[in-house]
Amino acid sequence: MEKFELTILGCGSALPTTRHFASSQVLNIREKLYMIDCGEGAQLQMRRSRLKFTHLNHVFISHLHGDHCFGLIGLISTFGLLGRTAPLFVHAPSAFGPMLRSMLDFFCKGLDFTVEFCPVDTTRYGLIHEDRSVSVYSLPLCHRTECSGFLFKEKPTLPHIRRDMIDFYHIPVCEINNIKNGKDWVTEDGKTVPHGWLTTPADPPRSYAYCSDTCYLPGLGPYLQGADLLFHEATFLHEDLARARETFHTTALQAATLARDSQVKRLCIGHFSARYENESLLLKEAQSVFGHTMLARENLLIKI
Amino acid sequence: MEKFELTILGCGSALPTTRHFASSQVLNIREKLYMIDCGEGAQLQMRRSRLKFTHLNHVFISHLHGDHCFGLIGLISTFGLLGRTAPLFVHAPSAFGPMLRSMLDFFCKGLDFTVEFCPVDTTRYGLIHEDRSVSVYSLPLCHRTECSGFLFKEKPTLPHIRRDMIDFYHIPVCEINNIKNGKDWVTEDGKTVPHGWLTTPADPPRSYAYCSDTCYLPGLGPYLQGADLLFHEATFLHEDLARARETFHTTALQAATLARDSQVKRLCIGHFSARYENESLLLKEAQSVFGHTMLARENLLIKI
Repeated sequence: MEKFELTILGCGSALPTTRHFASSQVLNIREKLYMIDCGEGAQLQMRRSRLKFTHLNHVFISHLHGDHCFGLIGLISTFGLLGRTAPLFVHAPSAFGPMLRSMLDFFCKGLDFTVEFCPVDTTRYGLIHEDRSVSVYSLPLCHRTECSGFLFKEKPTLPHIRRDMIDFYHIPVCEINNIKNGKDWVTEDGKTVPHGWLTTPADPPRSYAYCSDTCYLPGLGPYLQGADLLFHEATFLHEDLARARETFHTTALQAATLARDSQVKRLCIGHFSARYENESLLLKEAQSVFGHTMLARENLLIKI
Repeated sequence: MEKFELTILGCGSALPTTRHFASSQVLNIREKLYMIDCGEGAQLQMRRSRLKFTHLNHVFISHLHGDHCFGLIGLISTFGLLGRTAPLFVHAPSAFGPMLRSMLDFFCKGLDFTVEFCPVDTTRYGLIHEDRSVSVYSLPLCHRTECSGFLFKEKPTLPHIRRDMIDFYHIPVCEINNIKNGKDWVTEDGKTVPHGWLTTPADPPRSYAYCSDTCYLPGLGPYLQGADLLFHEATFLHEDLARARETFHTTALQAATLARDSQVKRLCIGHFSARYENESLLLKEAQSVFGHTMLARENLLIKI
């Protein structure tokens, strides 16, 4: 299977604690890196997770609270020092565009690469990026400021070649890609071997959804339906539901309910409030509704 | 002795490594905290060093390279979330004023405290802040951008009271402060006891100097003369002197030479280039010239 894995760089919420960094994650899809949120310290955490700066071309910022974006200017500044030349694409709510530009002009003069700002419409579900490996969709969230989640849908891969059949028909290596792409094989005596005989079906495309920060939104269900992994904020325990509502956050119980109702395969919860020293309470609460839940933690690698 | 101690929060240089945070330190003078530089992650490191946010009222920024100031907006944002009301004074090169203001307007709307910007003239030695505990002076440094070091001179403290003499003359507790402040004591039979008999001399005022980032400046000597502690950048080994000159940095040998020639009591070196995995080489080089040298490291506490 080709690589499709998530590394948590930080999973704390707004107030700093000794346990967590601010929100940031990196999704590795076939050795291309996609950063989701970029809280303070994200570049340091990338180093610690041994993720390669040069493989990162897209950063997706959910919203403009500091714990989700204060690490971006430092990351870009470091790219400049390292001599980067490839453009960097920053997908974020439109209001960030002019501010980012003025920070770049002030702190990062003379970059040898461009920072391309791609405004995200946070009010709707829609395709915001597409390349050979993945399609990325915005998910409209509901927080104290405009905010978008992100859904990463892997592009279908080619079928697997059947080594035994290739050997049997003495098919040369140079033909393998054609067969994977649907070409039949014609033997020396003119007999056609359908490509379906020579391959096994491709792995089903995988998907990953990121929902943070937001209040509980059961309406997200159809977008999340069947996702291989859902990361959802679970800032509070359900006993603090009033506080969650007040601050437009979600409880662990609510996150798990959404995961269960959307029939996702696994749930990872994070964005923990600084008030809980013992986060296993959040895990227990979520698992009471949805068994396949795990706690985010710094530098955790999740293979999807 | 009253508290006068330095905590290193970060002592790396511009490129992030897994070993170091970016530049930041906190000087604790009689339980008032003074931050010097505020690289990314400074607020997290303050938490780890168990330094109290509410005791910090002054931040001194040496220059506007990101590794010395990218943590400030996050720190201020956190102060806002914590309900701070006391003004925060930011001392920095004047160019930072408008940029800081626009970042505050964008990211930190509705703070309940004011951020007072105090421009520092980086071209001269001069008093830039004074309170009951300390006088702070700018030190003109020479880097690729305008840059200032800082010299913290403790205000003289009161003499120590001699408990034995107080007991001997049956002097009431309410008089002790007057005696410390120079009042003589008159006994019941009208005899004057000079306050000097009742006290031992105050501890000599201490001083701390911070010089980073800068090329080697022997001319700083008179300002640093006899300082109790000098923190000086030592970005490079002397074998990389050409690179140090090119980038307006200092070698460990040069930093130690300045410490020796200024007759400071102790030297702490930091701002290590990411290229040296083994920083003890920098220490050895400096100690070959000035024995009382130590290496900075994260969360190191130095009592001055």
